[in-house]
Amino acid sequence: MLKFLGMLTANTIKTIRALQQKKHRKLSGLFVAEGHRLVCDLLTSPLRLETIYHTNNWQPDRCSSDNRFIEISPKDMSRISGLSTPTPVLAIVHIPAHQIEIKHLDGTLALALDNIQDPGNMGTIIRLADWFGIKHIICSHNTADAFAPKVVQSTMGAIARVSILYTNLAQYLEAAKDAGITIYGTFLDGENIYTQHLNSAGIIVLGNEGNGISNEVEKLVNSRITIPHFCDDENTSESLNVAMATAIVCSEFRSRSIKRS
Amino acid sequence: MLKFLGMLTANTIKTIRALQQKKHRKLSGLFVAEGHRLVCDLLTSPLRLETIYHTNNWQPDRCSSDNRFIEISPKDMSRISGLSTPTPVLAIVHIPAHQIEIKHLDGTLALALDNIQDPGNMGTIIRLADWFGIKHIICSHNTADAFAPKVVQSTMGAIARVSILYTNLAQYLEAAKDAGITIYGTFLDGENIYTQHLNSAGIIVLGNEGNGISNEVEKLVNSRITIPHFCDDENTSESLNVAMATAIVCSEFRSRSIKRS
Repeated sequence: MLKFLGMLTANTIKTIRALQQKKHRKLSGLFVAEGHRLVCDLLTSPLRLETIYHTNNWQPDRCSSDNRFIEISPKDMSRISGLSTPTPVLAIVHIPAHQIEIKHLDGTLALALDNIQDPGNMGTIIRLADWFGIKHIICSHNTADAFAPKVVQSTMGAIARVSILYTNLAQYLEAAKDAGITIYGTFLDGENIYTQHLNSAGIIVLGNEGNGISNEVEKLVNSRITIPHFCDDENTSESLNVAMATAIVCSEFRSRSIKRS
Repeated sequence: MLKFLGMLTANTIKTIRALQQKKHRKLSGLFVAEGHRLVCDLLTSPLRLETIYHTNNWQPDRCSSDNRFIEISPKDMSRISGLSTPTPVLAIVHIPAHQIEIKHLDGTLALALDNIQDPGNMGTIIRLADWFGIKHIICSHNTADAFAPKVVQSTMGAIARVSILYTNLAQYLEAAKDAGITIYGTFLDGENIYTQHLNSAGIIVLGNEGNGISNEVEKLVNSRITIPHFCDDENTSESLNVAMATAIVCSEFRSRSIKRS
C-alpha cells in the first residue's frame, strides 16, 4: 500500500473542489466519492481510482496495494470535502468510459433515462438498478449527471457496479430496436403493467419528471406500459415520482421471471 | 366566499410561523399547507381549513363558500411562508383527529410505520398509499410527523386523502391481530415476497431506516416478507430505502388482486 503524507497545496485543493462542478469533471474525466463504505466499494470495483485522501484514523476494509493513498490532516479534509460533515476518506475516481455495445444487452434487462433531471431520482434509480441486477443504464445527454457528488453519495456504492452511458438516446434505441431488442416505455396511457406480457429482456425507458418520454423516443417504443392507480377518487395523485415508478416497474419485470421459473 | 383584506399583525405572523415546529402544531392542532394544487386538494377533502391566506392573483379551482379567505400582500405572504419561494396561497388546516378503529380495517390493506425517521420517506410513503388506494396509515409515536411542512408539501395532496394515526403501535397491532387481521412485516430474512401468498387485506409493517422493525412489533408479525435482490455480486446494496421497499411491496400486494380477478 503506497502511502504519502503531506500538506495539500492550494492548487490541489482548488483542483479537487472544482470536481463539484460538471464542467471540471468533464474536462478532467474525474469524479469525487466520499465515505468509508463508498470508497471501499469502489476499491473492489473495476473503476480506476486516481488518489485516496484519508485522515490518520482511516483504514480500508481490505489491503489494496496498487492504489495511491495520501494521509492528510482533518483540516485539509474539510478543505477538499463537499460534505458539510466531512468523512475520513475522499477518493478521486476516473469516470468510466463505458461503451455499452448493443450486443452486450442481448438477453438482459437495461434502463434508458430520457432527460431525468433530479439528482435525487438519478441516485435512487442507479441504486434500484443495482438491487434488481440491471447492469446497464443508457442516458440521454441532458439527463442529470450520475457522477455529480450528490448522486454518487446517494447511490450507496451502486455507482461502482452499474455501467452508465450518456449518448444520443434516440439513435441508440433505434439501433437496439433494429437488433431485435424490445423497447418498453412508461406512459400514463399505456397497457396495465400487471396484465401486460413482459419479456425477461429489453430496454425500459423512463421519461422526464414533468414531460415524460420525448416524442422522438416515444416513436421507438414497442410496448407502452402504465402503473394503474388503485384509488377510485379522481383527485388522487396525478402520477408517481419517476423513482417510485422505476421501483415498481423493475420489481414487476423481475418478479415475472421468478414466477415463470 | 368570505373575503377579508388586511395587513397581518406581528402576532398572527408569529403564530403562523410557529407552526413550522412540531410542538406548536401539537399545541394548536393546526398545520400549514402551501401551493395552489395542495390547497385546492384540501378544499375538496374532508379536512377542516381554518384560514386560507392568498395574494390578489390567486383563485381556487372551485368556489368554496364556507371557508375563510384572507387576501394579503406578497410581502406578508413571504413573512408567513416556510418556502424559499412563496406561492400565492397558504392554508392553515386542522390536524384531523382520525381514530382508525380496527373494525374499519376489515377487508382493507393498511400500512403501519414503526419509527420511520426521514421526512422525505414519510412524504413518499403517504403518496404511495394514496396511489395504491390504501386509506389508513398507523404510525408509532416516534415516527416522523406527517404534518410537518416538508412532509405535507411532498405528499402532493395525498395528505388530504389518507388517514394517519399516531398511537402505541404494538398495542394497536396486538388488538388488530386479535381481531383476525394478518400482520405482514418486511425483514431482510423473510419469505420471498414474489412467491409468498399475500392476502388482499392486512396490515403491512415497515420498519426504521437503520434498525428495521422493533422487537415488540416483530413478535406480532404473522408473515415475514422480503424483497429479494437480483444481483449475484455479494457487494450489492445492503438494503433498499424504505420508500422504495414500500413502492415494491404495495405494488406486489395490489397486483395479486388484479391477477386473481
